Amino acid sequence: MTWQTRSSTVVYENPWIRVREDQVTRPDGDPGLYGVVETGPSVFIAALTGERELLLVTQDRYPTGQASTELPAGNADGEDLMVAARRELQEETGYVAARWEPLGELQSMNGISDEIQHVYLAQELSYAGGEKLLEDGIHDVRKVPIDEVFAMIRRGELTDGQSVSSLMLLALHLDRLA
Amino acid sequence: MTWQTRSSTVVYENPWIRVREDQVTRPDGDPGLYGVVETGPSVFIAALTGERELLLVTQDRYPTGQASTELPAGNADGEDLMVAARRELQEETGYVAARWEPLGELQSMNGISDEIQHVYLAQELSYAGGEKLLEDGIHDVRKVPIDEVFAMIRRGELTDGQSVSSLMLLALHLDRLA
Repeated sequence: MTWQTRSSTVVYENPWIRVREDQVTRPDGDPGLYGVVETGPSVFIAALTGERELLLVTQDRYPTGQASTELPAGNADGEDLMVAARRELQEETGYVAARWEPLGELQSMNGISDEIQHVYLAQELSYAGGEKLLEDGIHDVRKVPIDEVFAMIRRGELTDGQSVSSLMLLALHLDRLA
Repeated sequence: MTWQTRSSTVVYENPWIRVREDQVTRPDGDPGLYGVVETGPSVFIAALTGERELLLVTQDRYPTGQASTELPAGNADGEDLMVAARRELQEETGYVAARWEPLGELQSMNGISDEIQHVYLAQELSYAGGEKLLEDGIHDVRKVPIDEVFAMIRRGELTDGQSVSSLMLLALHLDRLA
């Protein structure tokens, strides 16, 4: 690493994020400061039915002030990642999956955050209930054919970047990019 | 919006980010708090040569402590978005482009941030110099065939989620997802 940390101070903390301000030596040797948002890892779930539909949730997102249609996802909250992925899928959709496989890991927003986004493919789905939709502001859960999901991205109807990057991993896994 | 803001306080600010803590009423009616990271808009540039190569930069990323291979990108810093995109491309690669078109807008990390990521396709490239690589910790700029870029994502060698989501918009624009 060409960046060096000279000192580090926590400047804000709540139960979900912690913000540090570090005094640094920049890659060009100049002194500087860097604000880093620590969030812990997140999980994103591409839940694919036997009919090649994906489960999508529509959720009011406070930071952007907009409703957003997304993959089920959430913070791992210190849990084992697979436990977190199973919990988030069920809490946000009511579905459980018998078959899970990792699709990869991405850096969510590496200019300001340390978050690693762990992406999973969940298959062999069955409805088990136990949703906690209202808590997260989820007002719609639906199954959408995978080709229509890609078309939604193209039309600007699915604009959550972390879902879009997760779906790129899915498209590559499914050999959809020839 | 099902979330309501009861009060809002800036808890941290530096020249690049501002963090507010809002007292909110949650979608289920319970009181809560939300920490929001404000960054302003960012620009991501898919710079494509006539030989169907993309310009990639490899950069040390302070928040993750890792080098990362990415699309040229950066914060708009209050500038007009097209001006920012042209500036970032030249600062990070030395290239200028005669043809620009928007590929779409994504929410970078809508669980904690208000950032909108504006993605552009830049073509008809020519080298003009004027790079400021060291300032950002960029230690490599190269042209990579677009198919190899997709293969790098698949192999876990290009893990910047914002670049991956931008490249999904490019793949859709180029009709690569049949």
